[in-house]
Order: sequence, then structure tokens, then C-alpha cells
Amino acid sequence: MDKTKVIILKKKPKEFLEVDCFSIEERPIRELLEGEVLLKTIYLSIDAANRAWIAGPTYRSEVLVGDIMPAYGVAEVIESKDIKFKKGDIASGEINWAEYTINFGKLLTKEKPIKNPADLFTYRGIAGLTACHGLINVAKIKPKDTVLVSSAAGSVGMFACQIAKLTGCNVIGLSSSEEKCAWVRKSLGIDTCIDYTKGDLVRVLKKQCPEGIDVYFDNVGGSLLENVLYNMKIHGRVACCGAVSQYDTSGNYGPKNIPGILVTKRLRLQGFLVLDFTSENQEALEILSKWSSCGHLKVFTDEYIGLEKAPVALIDLLNGKNMGKTLVKL
Amino acid sequence: MDKTKVIILKKKPKEFLEVDCFSIEERPIRELLEGEVLLKTIYLSIDAANRAWIAGPTYRSEVLVGDIMPAYGVAEVIESKDIKFKKGDIASGEINWAEYTINFGKLLTKEKPIKNPADLFTYRGIAGLTACHGLINVAKIKPKDTVLVSSAAGSVGMFACQIAKLTGCNVIGLSSSEEKCAWVRKSLGIDTCIDYTKGDLVRVLKKQCPEGIDVYFDNVGGSLLENVLYNMKIHGRVACCGAVSQYDTSGNYGPKNIPGILVTKRLRLQGFLVLDFTSENQEALEILSKWSSCGHLKVFTDEYIGLEKAPVALIDLLNGKNMGKTLVKL
Repeated sequence: MDKTKVIILKKKPKEFLEVDCFSIEERPIRELLEGEVLLKTIYLSIDAANRAWIAGPTYRSEVLVGDIMPAYGVAEVIESKDIKFKKGDIASGEINWAEYTINFGKLLTKEKPIKNPADLFTYRGIAGLTACHGLINVAKIKPKDTVLVSSAAGSVGMFACQIAKLTGCNVIGLSSSEEKCAWVRKSLGIDTCIDYTKGDLVRVLKKQCPEGIDVYFDNVGGSLLENVLYNMKIHGRVACCGAVSQYDTSGNYGPKNIPGILVTKRLRLQGFLVLDFTSENQEALEILSKWSSCGHLKVFTDEYIGLEKAPVALIDLLNGKNMGKTLVKL
Repeated sequence: MDKTKVIILKKKPKEFLEVDCFSIEERPIRELLEGEVLLKTIYLSIDAANRAWIAGPTYRSEVLVGDIMPAYGVAEVIESKDIKFKKGDIASGEINWAEYTINFGKLLTKEKPIKNPADLFTYRGIAGLTACHGLINVAKIKPKDTVLVSSAAGSVGMFACQIAKLTGCNVIGLSSSEEKCAWVRKSLGIDTCIDYTKGDLVRVLKKQCPEGIDVYFDNVGGSLLENVLYNMKIHGRVACCGAVSQYDTSGNYGPKNIPGILVTKRLRLQGFLVLDFTSENQEALEILSKWSSCGHLKVFTDEYIGLEKAPVALIDLLNGKNMGKTLVKL
């Protein structure tokens, strides 16, 4: 191997991300430095956060024009100058939208041999753990809580719905089309899923939860968050996981009832990242694996085949076309 | 007594509250029903929340056109049909912008004879307790935290500044004029107070707190909250006490970086009301009284004399003219 296909950010989107913001190129693969490994991509995880990385600095530095697009992924070690890895090992962590990536071994996680590497991005990975920590350690759900989950058909949302239900909560999903709502009901077994793009959501939620919402697991932000806040119970909790409505746009919409309604209803809004809860991961993985092995926790992936599909996979995700976890398989 | 002067809400403000939204009238005083008491106003507490009560339903029902304007206050019992009260007792609770008010005894608190009844609205009342609970039970301040307080010259803000400093925090005040900032520095002993109406606040705060802000005690909301959020430390906490920038206006401004920045910085925004912490009041009052008696906690009031001054007192407060706790003395 002396060359690799890569996808670079060719230009910043003016408003919505489009496929021509990216270009596919061939780049030489250089010699490894001490501590580095050469990785061959197996799966790329496609996440709404990828769009936020392009928009500006977040919890990681901004992706600039000319950069190879980064992503979480799982890969096979082809060559190693890091003592932790040897050829043939499986590693996960930040790689590139590329066939081959060079990264430092210390920035990667060594994975045990695994039958289905996609699991590392579903219930055994960021999506499952994010849902679990957000509900349990941030929102602190209790049985019988009324829990509302936005992007219910999304990678994190599908787990949040199921975990809340398995904990004994009354779960309501929110999704952006009747097709996805039907999928949430049928595939995830969540009886109530509401298409929030239709009708007067404040009124619909009022009717659906006359006593109000205890916990909102929010992946969307924007005016949806504003409408949900009107229906929160006194002392309700919002686990702020993401703001997908705000990533693929040049403007921003801040819920107009913040902070007023937080005071009158004594609400708690708390942002979180899965990486803050590494010390709780082991316990969460045991629960998730147990639920998964006995079939209570279902996993759905939305797979695109081939590196060149990465841009369209991300754009589809931002447009809410996915049902389950979006992955690109190389 | 068979008549009382009252102030009624004559019309709703279109945008800013003005004195002609109110009118002073004379009303008959009716016979007491069982459980009621007749009260003669001593002090009316003037609070920014009064404006929010006019705007719509909050934690209490909306004040409608034609209603006598309600307020927290302290009063002398003139006549009682409630077993808890006798003539001459001092009571606090919700009364009216009026010389005399009838209310149920069970909705009022019986106060011990007190030298200065204004204390019931400063360090021994809502202002002191709100500051104390917001910092200690909501934001959970620790010594050496960098604590930012908006409306630092206001009734709650002046206590929040002093309590945080007495707890060993690094305190920065925010106020809306250089005159008030000077007052905060001189009267409250807070070395740093910033006029947030001048210059680029995001940059000013960055320079003042290069390592970021641990706790923001927010009385203002709006774009000020947005600017402060950019300067919060990872895992920072915001105690949402009020949103005075949003009360006296027909529009509303929601911070555009919510919820995005809550996620990337893992911030917690928590609204609270003093009435949620009644079980912690005793402990808080002991601390506040101790600090006050040895002169560490200073109390400042901004007193207006005469019932007819209530509207202008509220308007001045909303325009940020007060330094200390605004009261109307009858």
C-alpha cells in the first residue's frame, strides 16, 4: 500500500451540506513514525456531530477546507509502530473518511475480536452508551417517569426509547415523518410516536401527556425544544444530547422560553458527552449486553456500502432519512 | 375602616410598563369571612417578577386588567377571623398594592416582633434566601470557584455577590451602568464589577476570567446569558434565578447557543424558586443572620414612600435604576 482514497472537505456549506462540499482524492501513504499505526477502515460511523465539526470548534477542533474528513470508526491494523498494536488487531477511535488512516496508537482503543464490528457503534458503542448515560446519569430516570425522546428513529434515540421502556418508564417518541413513527412503533415497540412536523405540537403533547413530561432526551434543540419545554412537569429534567436542527444551517434558533420557563417550572437542562462517563461504561455495557443477548434491546443499522457513499450518508442523516444507526461499510 | 386605596392594573403594557398602566382607586372593605384576616400594609416588596405576573401565567396566575396588583409584603393584622392571628400581629406573604388587604390566614406567615420589618425582604427574606439557595443548593458553589453574578446591584444580586465572596469564591459582578458597578465595588466590596452594556462582553469576560467561569448566577437571561455561556468552563453550572431582560418587553430573545453549547461544554442550567427550599431555610437563615450580625453581610434598601409610588418603583426597578432591595413603605 502506498496510496489511499480519501474524502476531503472541498468547501464549507453555505447553508445545507451538499455532496459537492466534498471531493474524493488519492493521497500517498507515508512511512509510520514511532507510536503510529496504519489502519484499514472496516466501518465509518456517520454522526450528526460530524456536521457540527464542520461548522466550527466543538469538543474537538474545527474541520477546515482541505482537511480529510474525520470520523469515528473501526479498522484493522495493517502495520504498527505502537507497542499496543500488532498487525491484524482491531482498533476503534478517530479515523478518516479514507480507506487507510495513520493515527497514534495511544489515541485508539484495542478491541477484542468481534463477530459483528458494527456492534461497536450500536449497543456496545457511542450510541448505546450515550443513550444509557443520558437517561441514567444525567436525567436520572425512574420507573413510571414520562420520558420523551426526540430523533426516536435515530442511532441514539432508538436506544433511548428502548432503555427508558426497559426501565419501566412511559415512553413517547418524536420523529419527523409518519413513516419513521410507524417504524418506531413496530420495530422498537414504542406504542406512542408523534410526527412533530404536523399540527400544533404544544397541544398534541398536552393531550398525550396531560400531567406533563418528566424527562426529555433531546437530540434536536431549536423550536422543538421550545415546544417541549411548555409541556414539561415542574422539576422536569432535560438531557441535552445534541441539537441536530441547528447543525446543518447558517442561522441558529434559541428557544425563546429559556431561561424564563426554567425558572417558573424549575427545570434542569444538562448537556453531556459520552466521554464524561467512562468510569460508568463497564456497568452500562453489562446492562446493555444483557438486554441485547436476551433480545429485549434491538439493534438496527442503516448501512451504506463504499467510501464514496460517506457524504450522502451524512446528508441523509441530517435530513432525517435514517432509521437506526448510520454506518458506511468499506 | 370601610375603605382602602388600591392600585389596579388598568391596561396591559404594549411593550414597556408605564405608570398609566395603573390607576389608584378607592374600594370598600367588606366583612371578613371565616379564616380571613384584614391587613394594614407596612412594606410592599417590589420585584422584577411582578412584571412577569402581568405578562402571563408563571408560578402564580396571571394578573389581569381590572385586578388589584398583588405583591409580597409585610403588614399588621387589624382584624382576624383566623385562629393563628390576632390584632396587632405582624404577617408576611402575598398582599396587594393597597393600604388594606384581606387574605386567608393560612396563606400568610406569622412573624416575630421585629425591629426593622424591611429585613423580612432582605437578608431574612426572599432576596437573601434566593441568593443563598441558588448558590449553595442549585449551583453548589465551592471555595475558589469563579462566580459571575448578573444584576449585581439588585436585591438578590447584592446578596449573591456577598455570599459567594464569604464562601471563598472569586466573584465578578455584572451591572448595567458604571455608576452601579462603582456602587457594587464600594458598597459590597466586590473588586470586579463589569458594565455589560459597554464593549464586547465575550472578549471582556475572556480577559477577566481566562480560565472560564464555574458558576453563573443569572438574573437577566437574554443575550447576556448567551454571551456568558461562551465563557463558561467545561462542566459549569448556571443557576437560573430570573430573566429580567425578558419581562418588560413584548418580544423574547432565546440564547442562540442553547442547547448546542450546553452539550459541547457539558453545562447545567437549572431554574429554581426560593419556595422549593423551605426545608433548607432554617439553616440558611442561621448563616445569613450570623454574617449580618457581625457586619460581613451588608444590606441596602431603595425605599419609596407612599402607596402611589409603587408603579414608579417597579418601573425604576425594571429599568435597572435601583441599588439594593426596592421597597415601598406605607
